[in-house]
Amino acid sequence: MADQTTSLPDLPADDLAAFREQQQAAYDALLGRGLSLDLTRGKPSTEQLDLSDGLLSLPTSVKDGDGVDVRNYGGLNGIREIREMFGELLGIEPGQVVAGGSSSLVMMRETLVDLWLHGAVDSERPWSAEEKVTFICPVPGYDRHFTLLSWLGIDTVTVPMTDDGPDVEAVARLAASDPTIKGMWLVPTYANPTGQVTTQEVAARLVSMPTAAPDFKIFWDNAYALHHLTAEETKSADVLSLAAASGNPHRPIVFASTSKITYAGAGVAFLAGSPETVAWWTGHLGKGSIGPDKLNQLRHVQFFGSPDGVRDHMRQHREVIAPKFAAVLEVLQERLGGTGVATWTDPRGGYFVSLDVLPGTASRVIELAKGAGVALTPAGSAFPGSHDPDDTNIRLAPTFPVLAEVREAMEAVATCVLLAAAEKLAGN
Amino acid sequence: MADQTTSLPDLPADDLAAFREQQQAAYDALLGRGLSLDLTRGKPSTEQLDLSDGLLSLPTSVKDGDGVDVRNYGGLNGIREIREMFGELLGIEPGQVVAGGSSSLVMMRETLVDLWLHGAVDSERPWSAEEKVTFICPVPGYDRHFTLLSWLGIDTVTVPMTDDGPDVEAVARLAASDPTIKGMWLVPTYANPTGQVTTQEVAARLVSMPTAAPDFKIFWDNAYALHHLTAEETKSADVLSLAAASGNPHRPIVFASTSKITYAGAGVAFLAGSPETVAWWTGHLGKGSIGPDKLNQLRHVQFFGSPDGVRDHMRQHREVIAPKFAAVLEVLQERLGGTGVATWTDPRGGYFVSLDVLPGTASRVIELAKGAGVALTPAGSAFPGSHDPDDTNIRLAPTFPVLAEVREAMEAVATCVLLAAAEKLAGN
Repeated sequence: MADQTTSLPDLPADDLAAFREQQQAAYDALLGRGLSLDLTRGKPSTEQLDLSDGLLSLPTSVKDGDGVDVRNYGGLNGIREIREMFGELLGIEPGQVVAGGSSSLVMMRETLVDLWLHGAVDSERPWSAEEKVTFICPVPGYDRHFTLLSWLGIDTVTVPMTDDGPDVEAVARLAASDPTIKGMWLVPTYANPTGQVTTQEVAARLVSMPTAAPDFKIFWDNAYALHHLTAEETKSADVLSLAAASGNPHRPIVFASTSKITYAGAGVAFLAGSPETVAWWTGHLGKGSIGPDKLNQLRHVQFFGSPDGVRDHMRQHREVIAPKFAAVLEVLQERLGGTGVATWTDPRGGYFVSLDVLPGTASRVIELAKGAGVALTPAGSAFPGSHDPDDTNIRLAPTFPVLAEVREAMEAVATCVLLAAAEKLAGN
Repeated sequence: MADQTTSLPDLPADDLAAFREQQQAAYDALLGRGLSLDLTRGKPSTEQLDLSDGLLSLPTSVKDGDGVDVRNYGGLNGIREIREMFGELLGIEPGQVVAGGSSSLVMMRETLVDLWLHGAVDSERPWSAEEKVTFICPVPGYDRHFTLLSWLGIDTVTVPMTDDGPDVEAVARLAASDPTIKGMWLVPTYANPTGQVTTQEVAARLVSMPTAAPDFKIFWDNAYALHHLTAEETKSADVLSLAAASGNPHRPIVFASTSKITYAGAGVAFLAGSPETVAWWTGHLGKGSIGPDKLNQLRHVQFFGSPDGVRDHMRQHREVIAPKFAAVLEVLQERLGGTGVATWTDPRGGYFVSLDVLPGTASRVIELAKGAGVALTPAGSAFPGSHDPDDTNIRLAPTFPVLAEVREAMEAVATCVLLAAAEKLAGN
């Protein structure tokens, strides 16, 4: 039997063949178990959703703090109390926060459409009037970000993620040299899927760097700002203040939501930016909206009571999901540690573990896992065009299944990683 | 004193001068009363909103009829039960209905953006790639429809409304001759603001007429399908079946919502079309959305119980608002009947009374009313570009104020109509 602390790439051919047979047998055993497990998407579990069921019988009154009946039309910016609550949590002035419907992704789409059709407050023309528009995409990243770009016909150029956030030297070089580069995506706190936190220093550089395009935008998707997995509770970089201080106040547009705080389908989403950006955004919104669901906003205000209510609530989430992340890391360490065919992240927050397997085997691992009844995020999905140039990255999302299933799924994944590596190393 | 059954345009100069002085005195008296009344927008009143307060403690369970947890992500088409409920109410197969968020206006904007960026299932190219795009707008019409067109840079051409719906001969002539004409707006049942119902015959002609553009679209905004003011409860024309039978199944796109059934800010919106149109629409939606607020959809399903629950609920609305419409018509008849300076509609449903005053005086009436503390919809707002060529139309929205205020506001409006007419007829 191969010692799993022996690096597989260093094994003699005979040992490798034996190892492969062993993993094949383990895989064949998996097939007989009829698993049906899903690690594909960052969805809250039932136990997490239950934490917010106080919402179901709220609100107990229908006027907001300004006396506005939230059941009726109006209020494009959203109600003041929820902008104050999440403004404090995100470190942003409430006047610079817009509270919208249930989806921050929809707010991102609307923002891109506004830029495309009309340009930003600092644009020379609508982006659709440019010969070409390109976005910088740190990779691995969030597939839905890339899908939006492709829907609009926006090109992409990738940069690596580092421990401090995106590779800021690479970003600065690209942004300075190419006027078609109009913006970038970033999940600053607990990156999707790699978990890094963009530091205050990197954020300062991103908002102050010279850009060839006068209207360069940072889509600062702070989806996991409050989603800590440890007691550390990292604070996000204060990108709007940094941008204002750098003389580029309109560069960042901040997004956040309660999708993974309350309900994934029925939360409240937020957009924030410079006062001019907020006025620009609601101006376009008002061309085709009479206001968001303020009732759901008031429901959330009454449920949480205060920003501390949200923080306490997030600690309850942590109690549910931190053990699942621990289980993922335990199985990875036990089964893949020292094998030389896998590395993975140890996130302090967010919803994912990013697993890098032997280059050229990620698709095979995902195919094997599927065959064994374990659904993984499709190969390459963390890259624009679903093209992972090294076929190495797999995004693991352990929040949705119950703990026992997470462990069971990860045991299966580990077997698939080892079998695919053995196949690859054997030249097939 | 002038007899109000005497037509003002026929009065001798002296009598007209006396009449004008009388109305000026009445107006001056109004100024002293410090009114603050609002007939501007079609908003439900507090009493109407209260009818739906059963929603506030729903849902009592969180799974839909298919066992899906509505608190989580997913389900782009909306939950089956609400599509069935409103499909029956609208006479549309549930599979051809999409249930969305809280705003049908947002669904219209999204549809126009999809057409603009990508074209329809029967388009040769994206609408943005056309040299010019034009929409037919029946007038008077809904200002927010026109605003959306202007936001996208779509041109407009107007046709009159008739008792049977839009002037279908005029529409057919325009659509047949001009390939830049890509679509039209229509509020088919209880038009905004004129109240007419588009007949089955007119609808049949609209969906079968030859069009120069292969991808001509009817934006069938059935916002008031269920909003009857009499026991008649008119049924809307079955536009999707007629279109399919005519071989133009993709021509109509239907919109509706519960904004004026439950809550104006927190209802459920619907889109419907051919199966291909629905697939096209959700396909684009899925590029930037993970699904609508299904919880609010389930909340509505549980609140109504059945389509008959919705019908009963609408009768309660009618009891609240029909007296307000009656008050508007009474004051108009008492004060303006026989004066020869005003005509108005007598709607069987919907949210508006459309008042036509002496040509050239609508702006002045609205200005006078504002001075007296009565807010009316801005002059011209029922026309594209806010340009009422005859300066004659005023949209009255009596649902929001309480009954006594409706009467008080209408008395003031009548005074303003008469004063403005007297000024005009006197040559000043």
